[in-house]
Amino acid sequence: MKIGIIGSGAVGQTLGAKLVELGHDVVLGTRDPQKLDEKKNMAASLKDWLAAVKNKAKVVTFKEAAVHGEMLISCTHGQISVEALKLAEADKVGPKVLIDTANELDASQGMPPRALASQDRSVSENIQKAFPNLKVVKSLNTIGAPVMVNPKAVHNGDHTIFVSGNDAEAKAKVTDLLKSFGWSDVLDLGDLSSARGPEMYMALWLRLWGATKTGMINIKVQR
Amino acid sequence: MKIGIIGSGAVGQTLGAKLVELGHDVVLGTRDPQKLDEKKNMAASLKDWLAAVKNKAKVVTFKEAAVHGEMLISCTHGQISVEALKLAEADKVGPKVLIDTANELDASQGMPPRALASQDRSVSENIQKAFPNLKVVKSLNTIGAPVMVNPKAVHNGDHTIFVSGNDAEAKAKVTDLLKSFGWSDVLDLGDLSSARGPEMYMALWLRLWGATKTGMINIKVQR
Repeated sequence: MKIGIIGSGAVGQTLGAKLVELGHDVVLGTRDPQKLDEKKNMAASLKDWLAAVKNKAKVVTFKEAAVHGEMLISCTHGQISVEALKLAEADKVGPKVLIDTANELDASQGMPPRALASQDRSVSENIQKAFPNLKVVKSLNTIGAPVMVNPKAVHNGDHTIFVSGNDAEAKAKVTDLLKSFGWSDVLDLGDLSSARGPEMYMALWLRLWGATKTGMINIKVQR
Repeated sequence: MKIGIIGSGAVGQTLGAKLVELGHDVVLGTRDPQKLDEKKNMAASLKDWLAAVKNKAKVVTFKEAAVHGEMLISCTHGQISVEALKLAEADKVGPKVLIDTANELDASQGMPPRALASQDRSVSENIQKAFPNLKVVKSLNTIGAPVMVNPKAVHNGDHTIFVSGNDAEAKAKVTDLLKSFGWSDVLDLGDLSSARGPEMYMALWLRLWGATKTGMINIKVQR
């Protein structure tokens, strides 16, 4: 499948590399594709990333990524996700499925960062409101990037990932993609307003990270 | 141990009955102990509760409960927890351990209720600020009342409960009490500011409840 990733930090790079490995036609969208040598926050330079994926993907602009993908994945920080999608002119790409992986985290007051989501605020709903043409599905925001693409690395994969969205078919497509990553327990939380749940959960995740001293964690919904 | 419960709804009744069963000297504090016949929201009348515990506990005022308990358990709705503890004159009872089980949930806009916690707002910190004499420990707010006292009823008890608080000894005492209920995975999240995590998590829990159609659920932190 043609996949356009919006955002070239640790999450975009990790998802992109896995998607290349799975044989997808991936482009990684970034603000300035000329800056291949720039070290990315918590991630490799894009030059090193291209080498790691054996040049089987391309680094492009946000806009080129939005045009390329049959499916889009938003991997920017939550505070700038809508802005990045505006730069991508995502309003002009039709009814594409967009996976929103973002959280709004604020580290300006020290660690752990503050999770800004609330019952009145989610990144996913902000994106959906700004881009009614897209079929937004919230997922992947509840784990660190290495766990996203390798769930078996934590407790042999026995834990849960969530999807939220208004379009059942879009959620089914995202669920299939998650299963191709190795996810076995994909739980549909409901319409996109349910994205507030996993976004607010980040406040707990950050404390679990502190308490367990590892990001290689996730929760299993026992029922 | 002498235990004073502040709040006589489903949570207070359920915890109280379990503590009686375990041999503790329990009093259940309520606004008006004369109203034994009144049906409680989602719970039995206090007359029926007293019969269920074979009159091995007493129904008393908030103030009498605060005086009686060596350990206190706050089981009111989060919006009125501070008010109930003021009625209990909890500022006058010295350095007692208080377990805060509450969430601030708002059902005024329909179901599921909205979880009002945020990175600027937790019930536990509000209580601690109003009653610096108490050693507040957040726990038990992340599961339904039947699971609180019977963790083995969900996936044979293989799931996690949290404690947050500023006093290590108080958290150790609460952990011991939780283990006597059957909890095996008690995770210390850190100081009382970490209570925002499990309180914000309620937004996810309410969606899990909707998605799984049962309250007999909990999360296991896989690591």
